[in-house]
Amino acid sequence: MAPRILICGHLVWAHNELKDLLGSISEIIHLDSDSREDFLRGFQPGGKYDGVVGIYRVNESSKKIGIFDRELVDGLGKSVKWIAHNGAGYDQIDVLACKDREIYVSNTPGAVDDATATTALYLMISTFRNYAISERSLREGKFKPPGLAKRSHDLTGHTLAILGLGGIGMRLAELAHAFPMRIVYHSRRKVQDAPEWCEYFENVEEMLAQTDCLSVSVPLNDNTVGLVGEKWIRALKPGAIIINTARGKVIDEDAMIRALEDGHLASVGLDVYPDEPHVNPRLLEFPYITLVPHMGTENQDTQKKMEVRALTNLRDFLTVGQGEDLVTEMKGVKF
Amino acid sequence: MAPRILICGHLVWAHNELKDLLGSISEIIHLDSDSREDFLRGFQPGGKYDGVVGIYRVNESSKKIGIFDRELVDGLGKSVKWIAHNGAGYDQIDVLACKDREIYVSNTPGAVDDATATTALYLMISTFRNYAISERSLREGKFKPPGLAKRSHDLTGHTLAILGLGGIGMRLAELAHAFPMRIVYHSRRKVQDAPEWCEYFENVEEMLAQTDCLSVSVPLNDNTVGLVGEKWIRALKPGAIIINTARGKVIDEDAMIRALEDGHLASVGLDVYPDEPHVNPRLLEFPYITLVPHMGTENQDTQKKMEVRALTNLRDFLTVGQGEDLVTEMKGVKF
Repeated sequence: MAPRILICGHLVWAHNELKDLLGSISEIIHLDSDSREDFLRGFQPGGKYDGVVGIYRVNESSKKIGIFDRELVDGLGKSVKWIAHNGAGYDQIDVLACKDREIYVSNTPGAVDDATATTALYLMISTFRNYAISERSLREGKFKPPGLAKRSHDLTGHTLAILGLGGIGMRLAELAHAFPMRIVYHSRRKVQDAPEWCEYFENVEEMLAQTDCLSVSVPLNDNTVGLVGEKWIRALKPGAIIINTARGKVIDEDAMIRALEDGHLASVGLDVYPDEPHVNPRLLEFPYITLVPHMGTENQDTQKKMEVRALTNLRDFLTVGQGEDLVTEMKGVKF
Repeated sequence: MAPRILICGHLVWAHNELKDLLGSISEIIHLDSDSREDFLRGFQPGGKYDGVVGIYRVNESSKKIGIFDRELVDGLGKSVKWIAHNGAGYDQIDVLACKDREIYVSNTPGAVDDATATTALYLMISTFRNYAISERSLREGKFKPPGLAKRSHDLTGHTLAILGLGGIGMRLAELAHAFPMRIVYHSRRKVQDAPEWCEYFENVEEMLAQTDCLSVSVPLNDNTVGLVGEKWIRALKPGAIIINTARGKVIDEDAMIRALEDGHLASVGLDVYPDEPHVNPRLLEFPYITLVPHMGTENQDTQKKMEVRALTNLRDFLTVGQGEDLVTEMKGVKF
């Protein structure tokens, strides 16, 4: 009997690829549960998800069955061996619980780099140049607000600090290098294949003191919650800008808002928020900042790449026993 | 007696540079007229502008004395030999009238390239990815509008056509090459020092048929009014985007609006309009397009560069008889 694959959440762009990659080697079933209870019941012997070996998962599924926390992971059938998450960030999956259950977890890191870094570049241009307020002003019939040049700058020649030089951070570095900007970064360790023009700082605060714009590109986990807090924000050059396309909780939002209020930060460009889709109403009071609603990978080209990448991880697991994109915590792990 | 220099419009950023460049070799006087009549009266013998040799000019001065049309140019004193315009576009100066009067005209081409190309890149990212509507939606408390991915694309891998590969067009090519995009261009002639990855098309319509995004970077003059009209717009690939950071009148606005209405164009990103600061209210009806209020060079770094460049042209004229940035129509001309 062909192994069962569960598509947990909708595929939007890659229906043909689903057939090509998995159609002939698996039995594909789709999520058919409106609640967590129904979902977990499906994994009982004889249930509709009984015998499922691999799960394709997308965050949207949490609206019906909740996130993949320990309770949910523990309720998955013993046959489940692989969760192929569609997305770079996998903070909605309890990886430790998966490890305990000997379930591999993959994500789609490379597929999101270009689109997310483009979002960061957009937020940088918008905040350096104050385009957000200019667009609102035009649509309100007032054309250009006075005094914008005085608080606006070219990107060229300024210093961009990247916190976390993974795939997204490196892609942003390449895009910003075209201006050029001076590019500096901090990661847990020096990135060996980073280009020469990308300067490593082991000491974060030393880096921040030279930074015009800090872009946050670290994943959200126990070590990164509130990582950009009062101390680091105050270590930034006065008048600096913060860009966040990672996860809202990586920044201490209250500390950031205080720094906007007292002018230590000139602006922020945010794609992510601690409690999406809720946006802290205090943010809306700052006329110059740029706020977009988690648009990081919101386009069909990238979303198709992500779906294909997640499905390919499942295919590779079924055919050669291992998908390429194991999450960091599982690199090298063998169950 | 030191030659008199008239600062026609405000210097904002380069007061020190004005002293450094011109303080010791000229007598600097400032515009002190609220009307064209008063301005022209100043050039009469014994008037407040009598004997002025060089004029620094910025578009803002037109609010008081009007543009430098033939009437105004003819009214300038015979002593005037150089008009140093602050800006890349000099459509507010009647260059032919200046030629007839043997007055050199310079502009500030290089200084605007980076900032204007950055504006074009911003408009490209915004329109490919539909950020403008997403920002409005967030500020209206609705977070992300549904269905945006379906009409959104990565820049990477798409084809950017640049109309006019001058300084701004070339700078945009460099920025877009970082993605990379396929870059094609049309100019009156092939640009000899363009990089290999910049493909020249002599035949515009052949180029447009392969174009996902057309960016307009030609100056406004008699040959370019309405250059991008019905025929060229319809020659574009269906679903293409047009970006304009040049001048509004280079595009036939009615033809562009028709193409937006019937969906031939997916979007437009505009920084310039035919009758600024007036914006055609029909444009405001398209929810997905991006409109900014002539922000091309609206930042202090670039504006300072422009002011310094214009003043340097005056200084060079006074010291060596010729400034570097003579406008195209005057290249090689000797009075």
